[in-house]
Amino acid sequence: MATKEISLDSKILDSNDRLARKNRERFDEHKVYVINLLSSPGSGKTSTILSLIDGLKDEFAIGVIEGDIASDVDAQTIKKTGCPAVQINTGGICHLEAKMISKAIDALDLASLDLIILENVGNLVCPVDFDLGEDIKAMILSVPEGDDKLLKYPGVFQAANLVIVNKVDTLAVFDFDMDAFDTEMSKLNPQAQVKKISATKGDGVAELVEWLRTQIRAKRAQNK
Amino acid sequence: MATKEISLDSKILDSNDRLARKNRERFDEHKVYVINLLSSPGSGKTSTILSLIDGLKDEFAIGVIEGDIASDVDAQTIKKTGCPAVQINTGGICHLEAKMISKAIDALDLASLDLIILENVGNLVCPVDFDLGEDIKAMILSVPEGDDKLLKYPGVFQAANLVIVNKVDTLAVFDFDMDAFDTEMSKLNPQAQVKKISATKGDGVAELVEWLRTQIRAKRAQNK
Repeated sequence: MATKEISLDSKILDSNDRLARKNRERFDEHKVYVINLLSSPGSGKTSTILSLIDGLKDEFAIGVIEGDIASDVDAQTIKKTGCPAVQINTGGICHLEAKMISKAIDALDLASLDLIILENVGNLVCPVDFDLGEDIKAMILSVPEGDDKLLKYPGVFQAANLVIVNKVDTLAVFDFDMDAFDTEMSKLNPQAQVKKISATKGDGVAELVEWLRTQIRAKRAQNK
Repeated sequence: MATKEISLDSKILDSNDRLARKNRERFDEHKVYVINLLSSPGSGKTSTILSLIDGLKDEFAIGVIEGDIASDVDAQTIKKTGCPAVQINTGGICHLEAKMISKAIDALDLASLDLIILENVGNLVCPVDFDLGEDIKAMILSVPEGDDKLLKYPGVFQAANLVIVNKVDTLAVFDFDMDAFDTEMSKLNPQAQVKKISATKGDGVAELVEWLRTQIRAKRAQNK
């Protein structure tokens, strides 16, 4: 299987990269800042997106593209905020691909948006290799998952520009060693921004929102 | 990409199924009961395995095969119990395959074992399609992940013979609706055994151990 699989994989990735470049050109043309959000199932992608919408919606127009294997429960949740949300059902595929995003942005009015959040499929492995045309890859690790996930899934921590540690309000309940996390993170990817939050309780969210506000403003101010 | 990818996928799965059958013949020859354990990262696969070893080791000889993208931290943890543990590093692949297991069991003395636990890569999507030759697929959903995971990842809940809800000691901290879980589970897969435990605190572990004890004894008693 080895050779054949590898050659097809690289073809898939080449084709994906071409489409991701086109997506990026469309986003850049409209100065829309795009976040590709990765995590395991249940680490809090949707509740983090809700807290970001709450913190950023007064200044920016926000759209969300929801990737799921099945179901549209997250898109329904997002739509209640009044933000446009597009659901992608991958039909069993474990990651979003650039061509799925290309179709989804046809359903959004890019000229009217400042920020798009792409909620990837819950998976720490497969989405890492697929560029979607985003400005940054953000990932969420939640406290209940444990600090050893950096050792077990180093690829996603290395690829991320922003690492969010979520559910910090539950640190007393779980055996999560924050010092070990900080040490390992600074070895794996010292360039990454690290923000520690509780998306549902609000701890640390203001700081995360301010960091993103600066990034989005910088993109809006870019001369093309 | 569609046609080509699908045809290669089916070839990979056919080849996997052939090797899985061979693994199953080897396990059956030695009457070794085999559990393929699936979950997201951080839902407690390793701590559940430790509690099963503790509950079953007096009656049965247990071996563990650990699948990880990178690192051997779990195999090191298991070896401290005195049970043989074999580490498989998938080198980035998001699931275990039958040929990896075939190599790993060469390193175990099947004739001396009653139970083998295969700890799959932390991923609710990719491992579902790959038969490894196991007797049962068991999966773990932990309370912090949320009860909506049945809607978002139905495939793994449908494929599982045993569904373990872990970290029930944290139900007071998280918004996990156990009634909704039970209702949805009985729709998706009414045949599955459902056990609710806290692997680290011990709640419900005795009942899970007793259910497995009966299964393992039944396999030991089989006439070939």
